[in-house]
Amino acid sequence: MIIVLRAGAAPAEIEGVLAHVRALGFRPHLSQGEERTVIGVIGDERGVEPDELTWLPGVEKVVPILAPYKLASRDFQAAPTVITLDNGVQIGGPAVVLMAGPCSVESRTQTFEVAEALQGLGVRVLRGGAFKPRTSPYAFQGLGEPALQILAEVRATLGMAIVTEVMGPDEVELVGRYADVLQVGARNMQNYRLLEAVGRQARPVLLKRSPSATTEEWLLAAEYILAQGNPQVMLCERGIRSYDPQLRNTFDLNVVPLLKLLTHLPVIADPSHGTGRRDLVGPMSRAALAAGADGLIVEVHAHPEAALSDGAQSLRPSDLAALLPSLHHAAAAAGRQMAESPSPTTAAQSNAGQV
Amino acid sequence: MIIVLRAGAAPAEIEGVLAHVRALGFRPHLSQGEERTVIGVIGDERGVEPDELTWLPGVEKVVPILAPYKLASRDFQAAPTVITLDNGVQIGGPAVVLMAGPCSVESRTQTFEVAEALQGLGVRVLRGGAFKPRTSPYAFQGLGEPALQILAEVRATLGMAIVTEVMGPDEVELVGRYADVLQVGARNMQNYRLLEAVGRQARPVLLKRSPSATTEEWLLAAEYILAQGNPQVMLCERGIRSYDPQLRNTFDLNVVPLLKLLTHLPVIADPSHGTGRRDLVGPMSRAALAAGADGLIVEVHAHPEAALSDGAQSLRPSDLAALLPSLHHAAAAAGRQMAESPSPTTAAQSNAGQV
Amino acid sequence: MIIVLRAGAAPAEIEGVLAHVRALGFRPHLSQGEERTVIGVIGDERGVEPDELTWLPGVEKVVPILAPYKLASRDFQAAPTVITLDNGVQIGGPAVVLMAGPCSVESRTQTFEVAEALQGLGVRVLRGGAFKPRTSPYAFQGLGEPALQILAEVRATLGMAIVTEVMGPDEVELVGRYADVLQVGARNMQNYRLLEAVGRQARPVLLKRSPSATTEEWLLAAEYILAQGNPQVMLCERGIRSYDPQLRNTFDLNVVPLLKLLTHLPVIADPSHGTGRRDLVGPMSRAALAAGADGLIVEVHAHPEAALSDGAQSLRPSDLAALLPSLHHAAAAAGRQMAESPSPTTAAQSNAGQV
Amino acid sequence: MIIVLRAGAAPAEIEGVLAHVRALGFRPHLSQGEERTVIGVIGDERGVEPDELTWLPGVEKVVPILAPYKLASRDFQAAPTVITLDNGVQIGGPAVVLMAGPCSVESRTQTFEVAEALQGLGVRVLRGGAFKPRTSPYAFQGLGEPALQILAEVRATLGMAIVTEVMGPDEVELVGRYADVLQVGARNMQNYRLLEAVGRQARPVLLKRSPSATTEEWLLAAEYILAQGNPQVMLCERGIRSYDPQLRNTFDLNVVPLLKLLTHLPVIADPSHGTGRRDLVGPMSRAALAAGADGLIVEVHAHPEAALSDGAQSLRPSDLAALLPSLHHAAAAAGRQMAESPSPTTAAQSNAGQV
Repeated sequence: MIIVLRAGAAPAEIEGVLAHVRALGFRPHLSQGEERTVIGVIGDERGVEPDELTWLPGVEKVVPILAPYKLASRDFQAAPTVITLDNGVQIGGPAVVLMAGPCSVESRTQTFEVAEALQGLGVRVLRGGAFKPRTSPYAFQGLGEPALQILAEVRATLGMAIVTEVMGPDEVELVGRYADVLQVGARNMQNYRLLEAVGRQARPVLLKRSPSATTEEWLLAAEYILAQGNPQVMLCERGIRSYDPQLRNTFDLNVVPLLKLLTHLPVIADPSHGTGRRDLVGPMSRAALAAGADGLIVEVHAHPEAALSDGAQSLRPSDLAALLPSLHHAAAAAGRQMAESPSPTTAAQSNAGQV
Repeated sequence: MIIVLRAGAAPAEIEGVLAHVRALGFRPHLSQGEERTVIGVIGDERGVEPDELTWLPGVEKVVPILAPYKLASRDFQAAPTVITLDNGVQIGGPAVVLMAGPCSVESRTQTFEVAEALQGLGVRVLRGGAFKPRTSPYAFQGLGEPALQILAEVRATLGMAIVTEVMGPDEVELVGRYADVLQVGARNMQNYRLLEAVGRQARPVLLKRSPSATTEEWLLAAEYILAQGNPQVMLCERGIRSYDPQLRNTFDLNVVPLLKLLTHLPVIADPSHGTGRRDLVGPMSRAALAAGADGLIVEVHAHPEAALSDGAQSLRPSDLAALLPSLHHAAAAAGRQMAESPSPTTAAQSNAGQV
Repeated sequence: MIIVLRAGAAPAEIEGVLAHVRALGFRPHLSQGEERTVIGVIGDERGVEPDELTWLPGVEKVVPILAPYKLASRDFQAAPTVITLDNGVQIGGPAVVLMAGPCSVESRTQTFEVAEALQGLGVRVLRGGAFKPRTSPYAFQGLGEPALQILAEVRATLGMAIVTEVMGPDEVELVGRYADVLQVGARNMQNYRLLEAVGRQARPVLLKRSPSATTEEWLLAAEYILAQGNPQVMLCERGIRSYDPQLRNTFDLNVVPLLKLLTHLPVIADPSHGTGRRDLVGPMSRAALAAGADGLIVEVHAHPEAALSDGAQSLRPSDLAALLPSLHHAAAAAGRQMAESPSPTTAAQSNAGQV
Repeated sequence: MIIVLRAGAAPAEIEGVLAHVRALGFRPHLSQGEERTVIGVIGDERGVEPDELTWLPGVEKVVPILAPYKLASRDFQAAPTVITLDNGVQIGGPAVVLMAGPCSVESRTQTFEVAEALQGLGVRVLRGGAFKPRTSPYAFQGLGEPALQILAEVRATLGMAIVTEVMGPDEVELVGRYADVLQVGARNMQNYRLLEAVGRQARPVLLKRSPSATTEEWLLAAEYILAQGNPQVMLCERGIRSYDPQLRNTFDLNVVPLLKLLTHLPVIADPSHGTGRRDLVGPMSRAALAAGADGLIVEVHAHPEAALSDGAQSLRPSDLAALLPSLHHAAAAAGRQMAESPSPTTAAQSNAGQV
């Protein structure tokens, strides 16, 4: 941490800051410039918030030097975290992973129809909401536990791993009985009771970014989970809040390569929520893989026109099939492969760029 | 809701949209313009999300006409909601209310010291954190229930009403036993399990705005509480996320008069979190009252230099005393009064604008 | 400037940075922490952009210590700049100033009608656009020089000072012949050729903030003008870009007290553009004065329903008359007075807070 | 345009709005809903700003139906605009185009060194600044006309087309004598005098997006140029302002596929300014092409450590060489090719994803 003193800070003020720094257990390092005096604070600053020092008489500002997260950082663990699901799918390894499925589980029929179609395309991770956080209390809130049972049946029958959202600490045990990956939604990224609860159980966690979270806040939310003992956290970008009313969200792909520098945790991209428009999902899926994402999570519904939620951003299985060849190219651009068929050699020529 | 069709939409597409609107139980109203065909949807659109129609073949965009919240709207209730606390303080009435106190309850001594000083200034509502949501898992998280017991002792001894935060649905019953007002923090504004839980109990709720929430999302969060049967909700602006690194937040006072047009719920302003800097709290407190806020919630600590959290934005009791006269002027600008002493006639001349 | 090295930077890298700092004419100051090595750069860093050092091998980040503007800073000039117009109005002095008038000069009749009404309220500075920057090339672009002649006639007849916009370096001489204050619009805040041109002439300049400018960029734009030799610059806040579609802009009053700490230049607030809605202009005008603004610039039109631009945010003269008493209270909250009648003692009781 | 009336609007108010709509030359279409009355406005609404109607008694809001730009829209011209430069390079055609070069022209030697290296990689369009808009008046402002002469010499010697910025209307003729493409910088996106000037000459224009411009404002800025008679406009995304201090800008790739739906103009992506960090330029270049950009404009400097501006975001020629194979993959993902060598078949295997 660096403490910058105001121009013309009095010697007694400087002395006071030095004393305070020592009282906190740090070693101060004084540096007198031409216009400002600066005090370096030597020691592990993570336990102190910079704000706690800005009140001191004579202080102009306090600049942190270290990132405030530790377990999530590349400094702490250089090698990428690879998460292996029960069905063998690896997230964060050499292959990029495609997770797909409906926004909400609406019925057994609807879920099996789309799951089977996805399995036919090689998809091995199914997403689907049982508990749905909705902006309006009057919107469809999900089927709840019956939806979890349907997902478990897909899991048992088709061998797909299941990603589904958990909304409160009380539901963690229940959802964990059915799901392979517990999703913490964007609205709950700083719901600390929930983060602590998913950190105390063993299932991998998909942590969505809040639409106004900085990368640092996001990594600190991951740190809440890691600090409870669960090392299997993946980060999911799903669009930030921006000023253009043309799009529901601004899908922020810059964080994909940025996070790769800052953290060892896998990074997943959600172009469906990220853009909110079906006609942008294809191009932005390609862009996400080309930027280096470890996987995509995409909304697919057999009949988007009848979806109870988020139909506007859902692809049909046939859309995804047409998109796949171009995704192989995009993964190759980042030096990766995709496990899902069809192979790029057969279908790429005719279809690339068409969806 | 208005459905705008694409230029050159085919008759069959138009027919399809009309049929779909009727199937949802609405009455469509066709209007053929020179460049676009538009379909008005007649009926209570609140049960349908506009997105559910944008997937239809031929549709360019869907524009909602009605606000999606109902119980929170001025259309539903024209008269302002006035909330009366056990100690007689009224929020949303003719007088503006000053809530003040430390960010965190750190000890019995610290809390009584500041509470007594505040009481001497006429403050009748004490804020203080027992459970603290902190961005970092390594920061001080609050004393928990012992802090609630200290607050209850202040309540019993000094007759002050207590505002304190509740972080999870499990804690609602506990916090409700000690507090007059349950605060839902900015990070939990869309923690729906928590909103439902505070909606099912009888204490008034102070609902802070998430730093990236639109006014509509904020009012829908209030609607979650109201829809559970608790009508005593007040809205608290505490700064939005913006792009200038100079300030921690951008305190958005525009929502104060805007909310007065949209809703009957009281609006409180928090200039301490809103700006994050002690030297801006005074001017922005005045501005908030002049803009028409029903009250302020301000961080005050007897010794900000020793505060375990948010010292940088905390006033001393003496700062607040010096600020009060100018707040009387600011309330008068909005046609309101303040209950807290000292009276503007005695102290205003010398002190206005000095803090 | 502080240079933070990466964890594990090699001695040769550290040596390279030290050598580079010395080559730039600065004195480096090495400080070895537990996890990071930090180099303080001693000397006037304003000539160097931090980015120019981040490329150096081993560097993690570079943190500036000094604000990059100089002439605009409080460090350079502690006393507030007071600008005196030809008709004796002082901006930045003890009294706050009310500037008002139509968005565009549309005709001699329209301009005189509103100017006379404003003069009757005590307003001594008239705003009015001759050259109008419009988002669409198809919208009304202003009357041009004939409008300037009308404004000059108001000036001669009624003794009001004139504020009007200049859009390009070629127009500076022309507009300067007619106007008391040259306005640089928000879209041109970083139009450096224009800033240089208004900096090379003698008229005071009203520099509007770009809707995405940081305070630092804004002060650097002022610095462009100051550096050319024109010390009479006032800063005008007119709303920033934010994410809520409910309002055209987010009027950012936090910069009012913040700028008072950073700069000696007067700060004006424009609640008309800042909010974009007539029904918010009153409350936010009060808030701006309570926050400490040196003046307001407000759109007033005798017949907003017939205005060729910005009718939606224009007050009528009668609206302004009703607003004035509450503005006196708001100015008093900030320890200031207003020159404009009516006096607060007569009209305040009945009208405060009603507009 | 759709006019939504307030709940309970009086018959006289509705009548007034209908009369006003007719007076503007439009045909109104009344639609009475259960909670709101809505009036459709039939006719070409582009000449009227929605704000001009919101003042009318009884009006709640006005919703535009048509995009306000015309010449730039896909409705106006369905086929993509293809721009052919003097040296035969086509922008907007089947091949994506790579523009590269230093931020500033610093000397003849520096410019030729990097230009020759780029030519060796197949690059046929050189970027380089002669006039540099800089946030600080104390930073290097470019060499001016001597830099243009150096660029012209590169053009004559190496056959590369030249892209360079023009900062004011007075400089358009001068820069047009030397350059193939005139760049309008982000800060000048709404400098209408400049837009008009580049619209009145024949050179193609590269119009950068202002960091807070909506897509609609950006297309309206293009419309200013098109409306003057110059049809050769390309749009360049270079990062928007967002809230995370971690990155200088938020490179917004969503606009790439979005603009492809809205306009026929070519879309170029600038990952150097878009991210501001050299280590993100590679991944985000790949992402931009995969998203469907018609080209990239990338800062390349032979010696970034000695660059007078923007060294932190400049690649070396060797970095670009290493990046090229992966760009071929990324272009293929979007169904495009690149003209620049090396071919993907030879170099892709070893290098993809490594930069």
